Amino acid sequence: MKLGCCYYPEHWPEDIWAEDARRMRAMGLSLVRIGEFAWSRIEPEPGHYDWGWLDRAIETLHAAGLKVILGTPTATPPKWLVDRMPDMVAIDEQGRPRGFGSRRHYCFSHEGYRAECRRIVTVLAARYAKHPALHMWQTDNEYGCHDTVLSFSHAAAAAFRGWCAARYGTIAALNAAWGNVFWSMEYRSFAEIDPPHLTVTEANPTHWLDYRRFASDQVASFNREQVAILREAAPGTPITHNFMGFFTEFDHHDVGRDIDVATWDSYPLGFLEQFWFSQAEKRDYLRQGHPDIAAFHHDLYRGCSPKEAGSRWGVMEQQPGPVNWARFNPAPLPGMVALWTLEACAHGAELTSYFRWRQAPFAQEQMHAGLLRPDSTEAEAADEVRAAAAVLDAIGPQACAQAPAALVFSYEAAWVIGIQPQGQSFRYLELVFEAYSALRIRGLDVDIVSPDADLSAYRMVVVPTLPIVPDGFAEKLAALSCPVLLGPRSGSKTDSFCIPDGLAPGNLRDLTGVTVNRVESLRDGVSEPADGFAVTRWREDVVADHAPEITDAAARGVVYYKDGVRYCAVWPDRDLLALLVERMAHEAGVELCDLPAGIRVRRTQTHVFTFNYSGQSVSLPGFDAPLPPASWHLAPL
Amino acid sequence: MKLGCCYYPEHWPEDIWAEDARRMRAMGLSLVRIGEFAWSRIEPEPGHYDWGWLDRAIETLHAAGLKVILGTPTATPPKWLVDRMPDMVAIDEQGRPRGFGSRRHYCFSHEGYRAECRRIVTVLAARYAKHPALHMWQTDNEYGCHDTVLSFSHAAAAAFRGWCAARYGTIAALNAAWGNVFWSMEYRSFAEIDPPHLTVTEANPTHWLDYRRFASDQVASFNREQVAILREAAPGTPITHNFMGFFTEFDHHDVGRDIDVATWDSYPLGFLEQFWFSQAEKRDYLRQGHPDIAAFHHDLYRGCSPKEAGSRWGVMEQQPGPVNWARFNPAPLPGMVALWTLEACAHGAELTSYFRWRQAPFAQEQMHAGLLRPDSTEAEAADEVRAAAAVLDAIGPQACAQAPAALVFSYEAAWVIGIQPQGQSFRYLELVFEAYSALRIRGLDVDIVSPDADLSAYRMVVVPTLPIVPDGFAEKLAALSCPVLLGPRSGSKTDSFCIPDGLAPGNLRDLTGVTVNRVESLRDGVSEPADGFAVTRWREDVVADHAPEITDAAARGVVYYKDGVRYCAVWPDRDLLALLVERMAHEAGVELCDLPAGIRVRRTQTHVFTFNYSGQSVSLPGFDAPLPPASWHLAPL
Amino acid sequence: MKLGCCYYPEHWPEDIWAEDARRMRAMGLSLVRIGEFAWSRIEPEPGHYDWGWLDRAIETLHAAGLKVILGTPTATPPKWLVDRMPDMVAIDEQGRPRGFGSRRHYCFSHEGYRAECRRIVTVLAARYAKHPALHMWQTDNEYGCHDTVLSFSHAAAAAFRGWCAARYGTIAALNAAWGNVFWSMEYRSFAEIDPPHLTVTEANPTHWLDYRRFASDQVASFNREQVAILREAAPGTPITHNFMGFFTEFDHHDVGRDIDVATWDSYPLGFLEQFWFSQAEKRDYLRQGHPDIAAFHHDLYRGCSPKEAGSRWGVMEQQPGPVNWARFNPAPLPGMVALWTLEACAHGAELTSYFRWRQAPFAQEQMHAGLLRPDSTEAEAADEVRAAAAVLDAIGPQACAQAPAALVFSYEAAWVIGIQPQGQSFRYLELVFEAYSALRIRGLDVDIVSPDADLSAYRMVVVPTLPIVPDGFAEKLAALSCPVLLGPRSGSKTDSFCIPDGLAPGNLRDLTGVTVNRVESLRDGVSEPADGFAVTRWREDVVADHAPEITDAAARGVVYYKDGVRYCAVWPDRDLLALLVERMAHEAGVELCDLPAGIRVRRTQTHVFTFNYSGQSVSLPGFDAPLPPASWHLAPL
Repeated sequence: MKLGCCYYPEHWPEDIWAEDARRMRAMGLSLVRIGEFAWSRIEPEPGHYDWGWLDRAIETLHAAGLKVILGTPTATPPKWLVDRMPDMVAIDEQGRPRGFGSRRHYCFSHEGYRAECRRIVTVLAARYAKHPALHMWQTDNEYGCHDTVLSFSHAAAAAFRGWCAARYGTIAALNAAWGNVFWSMEYRSFAEIDPPHLTVTEANPTHWLDYRRFASDQVASFNREQVAILREAAPGTPITHNFMGFFTEFDHHDVGRDIDVATWDSYPLGFLEQFWFSQAEKRDYLRQGHPDIAAFHHDLYRGCSPKEAGSRWGVMEQQPGPVNWARFNPAPLPGMVALWTLEACAHGAELTSYFRWRQAPFAQEQMHAGLLRPDSTEAEAADEVRAAAAVLDAIGPQACAQAPAALVFSYEAAWVIGIQPQGQSFRYLELVFEAYSALRIRGLDVDIVSPDADLSAYRMVVVPTLPIVPDGFAEKLAALSCPVLLGPRSGSKTDSFCIPDGLAPGNLRDLTGVTVNRVESLRDGVSEPADGFAVTRWREDVVADHAPEITDAAARGVVYYKDGVRYCAVWPDRDLLALLVERMAHEAGVELCDLPAGIRVRRTQTHVFTFNYSGQSVSLPGFDAPLPPASWHLAPL
Repeated sequence: MKLGCCYYPEHWPEDIWAEDARRMRAMGLSLVRIGEFAWSRIEPEPGHYDWGWLDRAIETLHAAGLKVILGTPTATPPKWLVDRMPDMVAIDEQGRPRGFGSRRHYCFSHEGYRAECRRIVTVLAARYAKHPALHMWQTDNEYGCHDTVLSFSHAAAAAFRGWCAARYGTIAALNAAWGNVFWSMEYRSFAEIDPPHLTVTEANPTHWLDYRRFASDQVASFNREQVAILREAAPGTPITHNFMGFFTEFDHHDVGRDIDVATWDSYPLGFLEQFWFSQAEKRDYLRQGHPDIAAFHHDLYRGCSPKEAGSRWGVMEQQPGPVNWARFNPAPLPGMVALWTLEACAHGAELTSYFRWRQAPFAQEQMHAGLLRPDSTEAEAADEVRAAAAVLDAIGPQACAQAPAALVFSYEAAWVIGIQPQGQSFRYLELVFEAYSALRIRGLDVDIVSPDADLSAYRMVVVPTLPIVPDGFAEKLAALSCPVLLGPRSGSKTDSFCIPDGLAPGNLRDLTGVTVNRVESLRDGVSEPADGFAVTRWREDVVADHAPEITDAAARGVVYYKDGVRYCAVWPDRDLLALLVERMAHEAGVELCDLPAGIRVRRTQTHVFTFNYSGQSVSLPGFDAPLPPASWHLAPL
Repeated sequence: MKLGCCYYPEHWPEDIWAEDARRMRAMGLSLVRIGEFAWSRIEPEPGHYDWGWLDRAIETLHAAGLKVILGTPTATPPKWLVDRMPDMVAIDEQGRPRGFGSRRHYCFSHEGYRAECRRIVTVLAARYAKHPALHMWQTDNEYGCHDTVLSFSHAAAAAFRGWCAARYGTIAALNAAWGNVFWSMEYRSFAEIDPPHLTVTEANPTHWLDYRRFASDQVASFNREQVAILREAAPGTPITHNFMGFFTEFDHHDVGRDIDVATWDSYPLGFLEQFWFSQAEKRDYLRQGHPDIAAFHHDLYRGCSPKEAGSRWGVMEQQPGPVNWARFNPAPLPGMVALWTLEACAHGAELTSYFRWRQAPFAQEQMHAGLLRPDSTEAEAADEVRAAAAVLDAIGPQACAQAPAALVFSYEAAWVIGIQPQGQSFRYLELVFEAYSALRIRGLDVDIVSPDADLSAYRMVVVPTLPIVPDGFAEKLAALSCPVLLGPRSGSKTDSFCIPDGLAPGNLRDLTGVTVNRVESLRDGVSEPADGFAVTRWREDVVADHAPEITDAAARGVVYYKDGVRYCAVWPDRDLLALLVERMAHEAGVELCDLPAGIRVRRTQTHVFTFNYSGQSVSLPGFDAPLPPASWHLAPL
C-alpha cells in the first residue's frame, strides 16, 4: 500500500514547494493528490489558461520522486463562470438557488455547465495525459457533498421529464406504475411532471424514488463524461473518484463501474460525532472512532470497484488530527492515525492519502489538521505516518483473503427506506452497520457487495434488508448452499415502489416460506421482551408454512428458518444479531472469536492484524503482553 | 348504527367490484363512501366527463344492497386545472407556493378555483341526485388537512382586505380595534393591509386573530357553496363533511351549522403518537390509544352538528390497523377495532365507516391498513367488524341520554391561546382534553358544546377557558342553578383581542367576584406545591370580594367560589381537576364512579357500555369475571 | 440616580395625561421617555406633520415637573413610507423580505430610508431642541432587535462592495486576505462579491467576519447621522441609545463613542429564560434572575460610554413585572424591582427608567407589565419604585469607586467565535459571563472594558478570550504590573481571520511564552478530570518555554504562568475559574469575600451594597439579622 497526501501548491509560495516535496518523500509518502479545487488558477479569466504554476508544481513533485493524482477542478467553478450562466446552480428543496461562495455550486443536470466541464477536463487531460508523474486521475471531488445530489432547478425538472419518458414510454405507463389514480395525481403528458418538492403533503413515494434514481443517474452520467475524456487522453491511466462516508444519495455501485479505483475519504472521529451512535459510544470512542466505521467503508467501497479489474480501492483522504466540520472536533488518541492507516492496509487498500499535507491558515478549513501545522512544523500525525510506513515496508504487499461473510448493500434500499421509513427510527445505514458490526465482533472478515454480486464463494450471506429484489436475486440465493439471513422489509416493494402481488416478501416468498401480513413500527423506548433479546422499532406479523425458529415472550414469530434461509421479522437488536451470527457460523462451520470490547481482527492472505480501538490496554489470549490503547499487533498467518 | 367503509373503485379492476360489494355486505357493512378523490377520472380532460365507470361502480354497489356516500372531488384538483390557473394554489407562511403532487393544493380564497368547484359539484349533483343508492353527500375531504386553512396568496390577501372592510367599515375603526397606534402600525386604507406573515417580529395579535377568523370564514363559505348546490339538486339528502382529530384551525361549529351530519376521521393510535401525551401514556396506550381520544371527538362533533336536526354525527373514517402517517405506527391490540366501533355507538353515532376497504398497494398511503390486505385477503380487522356488527344487531338502535356534564369548547379560544400562549406549555386542546378526561374517569357522560349552546339541561358546566366571552354568555351562566367551573384566562380578552376594561375576567367579573391583577407562566419543571395538587404552567394573582376556596402552600388563592361558580386561577393539574369534579358532582348530587385506570363507561338511553382500554385484564365490582384487555361489556340500564 | 418611565401618550386619551404626570411625580419619577415609536402620529400622511399632540404631551409632563427623553421614531416607519420604497426592508438570510406589521422593518444600508430618517430627525430636532423639558435624546430604539443588524438586500450588497473596496483597495488584496484561492473563490472585481448567505456550505469565515464588520459599521453610521443632526440642533443636550442584553451583533463600543450616555434595557427574568443558563439556575433564580445578569450589563455598558465624558450610563427600560416575550414569563419576587433599581445605582447609573408606565391593553405587548395596570390601578412594582426612590433620596449621589478587576470584552471576538465555534458549546458570551461571575462571587467590583481601554489602574486583568489581538494590546499587557489572565483562543486569529504566522497565540506568544500546537473541542458530557476541576468543551496542546502551572490528571498542561501573565489552555469550568481568581487576587493583594449562593456585593465611593438574589433568607457575617429574599442592605464605607 502506498502512502500519499493531498497538497495544494496554489496555497503556498512557490519557493517552498521543493522542500515540501523533499519532506513528503522523507516521511514515507510517494503519492500526491493535487488540482481538484484549482479552476480559478488554471483559468483565471474565461478562456485564458495559466498552466505555468501547475506545470512547475508537478515538475517539482516529480523531481522529488513523487507521483501525482490529478483532480479535475469541476467541484469549484469560478465566479465568472457562475455569472455567465447563473442558472447553473442547483435549486434546493425549498426552492432557493444555492449560490457561489463555497463549493459544489452546480446542478448535475445543467447542460451548459456540463459543456464547460468537458472543456476544462479536455484541456487538462491534453496537457498532462502523457506526464511521467501522472499516477491517477480523480474526477471532481466528493460527489454529493453538502447535500448536492438533488437539485430542483428548471434544468433538473426538464431532464427528469426526459428520464421519465425514456423509462416509461407512455404517460399512461407512468401513471399506472406510480399509482397516480390515487388523489387524482394523473398526468396527461410528461411535460406536466414536476420534481416532488414543495407539495402540500408528502409526494408519491414512486415519484420520489424515480427522482432519486434520476438524480443518481445524473451523477453517474456527469462522471462518465469526464471518464470518457480522461480515458481517451490517457489510456491505461487509472481513474478514481473520492467517495464519502455514510453517504447513500447516489448509487456508488453505478459510478464505481465507470472508474478503476474506488477511493473514499475517511474521517472516523467526525463520522462518530455526526451519525446515530449512542451517547455512550460517542464518549467511549471519542478519540478513536467506533471500531467498525473505517472498516465498514473499506469493505463497502472495495465492493464498489470493478471486481474484474481487481477490486482496486484506497483511502484518498485520511483524517490526520481534529477536523473542522463536526459539532465537536476532538483529537485522535496518539497512535490512531497509524492504526487507521494499517486498518486500510488490512482490507487491501492500494493507497492511503492524508488530508492534507499542511493545514491551511485561511478560509473554511483552517481548523482542519494536516501532517504539518500552518507554520510548517510537523503535526502530531507525522511521526505516526513514519511508523505506519515502516510497518508497511516490513510486511510487504497485502492482498485480501476470501472473506467468509458477504453483506448485501443496496443504495436503492437506502432510498426506499428513507422515502418511507414508516417508523422514524428505521434507518437503513444503521441496520446494515449493526449487521456488519455483529459479524466483525466475532472476528469475521466481511465483503460488502451489491445485490448483483456473485455470492457463490461465501460461507454466510447477510441481507440486512432489500425492499426491492432485483430479477434473479431470489434464484441466486436459492442456489447457495450456505446459510442466508434476510432482514425485515426484504421483498416488500416492487420496482415501482408498490406492495407486491401476494404481499411481502414478494418473490422471496418461495425461498423463505413466509408471507408478511402486517407490519408495525414501535416508538423509541418501547421494547418487547424475548428470551435473550428484545423486539424494538419494527415487527412483522408473518404467516409461514413452518413454525418459527425463534419467538418472543408472547410466542409471536421473530425468525423463520427454511432450508438454510432465515427471515428475520423484526428489527434485530444486537443480542438477536449475535444469536443469528452464532447459529449461521455454526451451520457453516466458520470459526468465531470472542473479542473483547474495542478489539477487531482482520486477515489478509499472509497476516493477521489485531487492532485495539478501546481507550484501555487489553489483554488478549495468546498475546505476551496487553495491547495498549490505539495500537495494533501483526502476525503472519 | 350503520357500518360502512371507504372504497375507491377507480383503484381496482372493474371485474372485482361485484365481489368486493358482496363481501362488504357479508361483513356487515351497508354504506360505502366513494368519489372524493376521483376528479381526474371524472373529468380526465378539461370539460370531458367520464361518468361511465362511476355509474357502474354505484350500480354495482347498489345491486349488492349497499348505499353510497358520495364525495365531491374538490380536495384533489387535477394537474390540468392547476396548470390553467397556477395561482390557485395556497402560499405558505414562508411565501412559497404549495404545489401539485399530493392533495389539497388550493387556496380557499381563489375565486377561479371556487368557480371550478361549483361547476364540478353541479354536474356531479345533477348526475346522481336522484340515484336510489345515494345515502348522503360528503363535501370535499378533511378541510384543513396538511395545514391548509391559512394561505398567504394574493387571492387571500385581497379577500382579507374585503373582509376587514366589511367588519370595520372604516380604516379608523380597524386601527382603533387593533391598537395600531402601537409601533406606528396604522393604515390609511384597507388596501394597505397584508396578511400577518413574514413580519420582522410577531405581528399584532388582533391582526392574527382577524386573519384566522377570515380564514375560517373562507372555509365555511367554500363549503356553503357546495352545500347550496347539493341541497338544491337533492332536497332531503343529508350532507356531511368529514372533520379531523385534534384540529382547530377553522370553526367547526360554523361549518357544522351548514351540514346535516357531522362526521370525523378517527385514528386513535396516530393521534396518541402525534400529540402532547406523556411518554408513559404513549407507552401504556401504545396499541389502544388513550381512552378519551375517540370519545372526546365523538362528543365534540356531536356538538358541532345542528341540534335542531337531532345532533346527527358519525365516524367517516375509522382506523382498522396501523396507519402510515405518524412517526411510529403500531398495530391495534386485537379487539380494539371492535371496541372503537362500539364506543362510537355508545356516543350515539349513526354510522362508523372504516378507512379503507382494501389497503392500496401503491402511492402515498400504501402502508395504511384496510379491512382487506392489498392481496384481497382479510386483514385482522375484518373479524372485529363482524363481531361489532353482531353486537349492534343484538342491541338495536342506541340514542344518547341527557349527559350530566357540559364542557364548553371554543375554536376562537384555541386561536387566541395559540396566537398568544404567554407560556409555551399553555395549550388549549390539552387543557380541554384534561378537563374532559377528569369528568370521564369518574364515569360521567359529557356533551362538548359551543359557547352559544343552551346549558340549562346540565347538572355541571365546565369552561376550561374562554378568553373572549360572547355577548350573553355571562348572563346565561348566571341563570344556571348548577355548579359552574371557569378556567384560567376566561374573560381575559375583548372581541378585539385586547385586555378588557377593568381587567380579566371582563364581563365575568360580577359572576365570579374576582379580578385578575397579574398573570405569570411557569417553565416546564417548575411545580409549586399545594395540598393534594401542585401549581404548574400558569398562575394568576387575583383579588376577590371573598376568600379563596382553595389556596396553595403559600396561601395564595387558587380557586375562588361564589354562588355556585368557581374560578380557577391556575393551570389545573390532574389532582386539582379531580378535586373540583368531586366537589361539583357532590353539590349537583351527581353520582361518581371510581374507575380503574384505562376503564371507561358510557350510558345510552337503554344500555351501559364498559370499555377496557388498559393493556391488562381488569376486575370490576359487580362483574362476574375480569374484563380482558381491549374488550367491552354491555348491560341494559 | 434619577428614576423615570417609558410613556406613550399617543396610546391614551389626552384627558388622562395630566393625572398620569402627577402620579409619576408622586411615585418618585422625574424622567419620561417618549416618542420613539410615534412616526405614524407625527407624520400621519407623507409630508403632513401633526405636532399638536406631542407639543401638548410634552407640555403636560413639563408642567408636572418632569423632564423628557425624546426618541427619534426611526424604528417604526409608517406603512405609507414602506409602500413608497418597498426595497427599504431588510432581506433575511433565507432571502425573504422582512415585511411591515411589527417594527424594525428597514435595512440599515438603504440610502432612501436613511434620507427619510434624516428628514424626520431634522424636523423633530428643530421643533424640540430648545424645549425646556428636553433632558436627553434617544436615537431609534434597540438597534438590532429581532435579528435586524444583518440584511442581505441589494442595498446591503452594494454597500458591502463599496466597504470592501475601501478596506482593501484592490481585489487582489481582498483575495489574498480572505484566502480565496481556497476552493477557487477568487473574485476578479469587487462587483462580483455577494453577501455570504445561501452558499452551498459555510462561506469563507473572513467573508463572514467582514460582512459582520460592515453591518456593524452600517449601524454605527446610521446612528451617527442622527447624532450629527441632534447635536447641531441642541448642542449640549446629551444623546443616548438604548442597547439590549446579551446582544453582540454590532460593536457597541463603536456606537457608544458617538453618544453621550449608554443606556440599556434590563429584563433579568426574560434573559434568564432565553439564554444558556442551566435548568437548575433557571429554576433557582426563576423570579429573581441570575444575580450577575443585570450587573454584567451595567458594567459592560458603562464601559461602552465615552470615558472622557464620565462613563455616563443608565437603564432605559427596567422590567417591572412579567414580560411577554420569553418562552415562559414568571413574575418577579416581591422586592426584586426595587433591588434591580438599587443594583443599577450601585454600579453608577444616572437613571433607571421603567418600561412602561401603564401596561397597554392592545397590540403585541399587552402581556408586558407596567407600573400601572391597563385599568390605571397600580401594579405590584409601584410600591417598590417608591421604596427605591426613598432609598435613593436617603443615600444621595453615588459614584463608582475604582474597580480592582478589569474584564476585557470584544464584540469582534463574539463574531469570530460565532462564525467558527469549532465546538458547538464554545459560546463567547457564556465564557465572559462565567469569568465575570467568578470575580463577583468573591465580592470583586469589575469594569468590563474594550480591548483599547487603559488598563493601568486595575489590580487584575482578565481576558476571557481575544482571538484577534489589536495592535498594541500585547505591549499594553506587558507593561502592566498586575496579574493578567488570558483565556483559550486568545491570539488565535489575524485581523483577516487567519491563523497567525508562528501559530496561536500570535503576537501574545512572547508575553505568554506558549505556542498552541493543536486545539480540540469536546462534546457535551465529556469531562476530563484534574485536581479540583475538570476539562470540558475545549483543550489546547501547548508547548511552552516553561512548565505548566496547572496540569490535569494526565499531566497535560492546563494553565501556564510567566511573569504575572497566565494563559489558560482549556475552557475553564467554574472550579478552575475560582482557583485562578484566588491566585490572582492573592498575588495582587486584593481581598476576597466568601459570599453565600445568591449574595452579591458592590461598592461605590461611599457605600457597600449587599443584595440577596437567592430565594431564601441568608445569614451573613457581621449582619444583625438574616437578609430576606429579594432584599438588600446598604452600609456606608
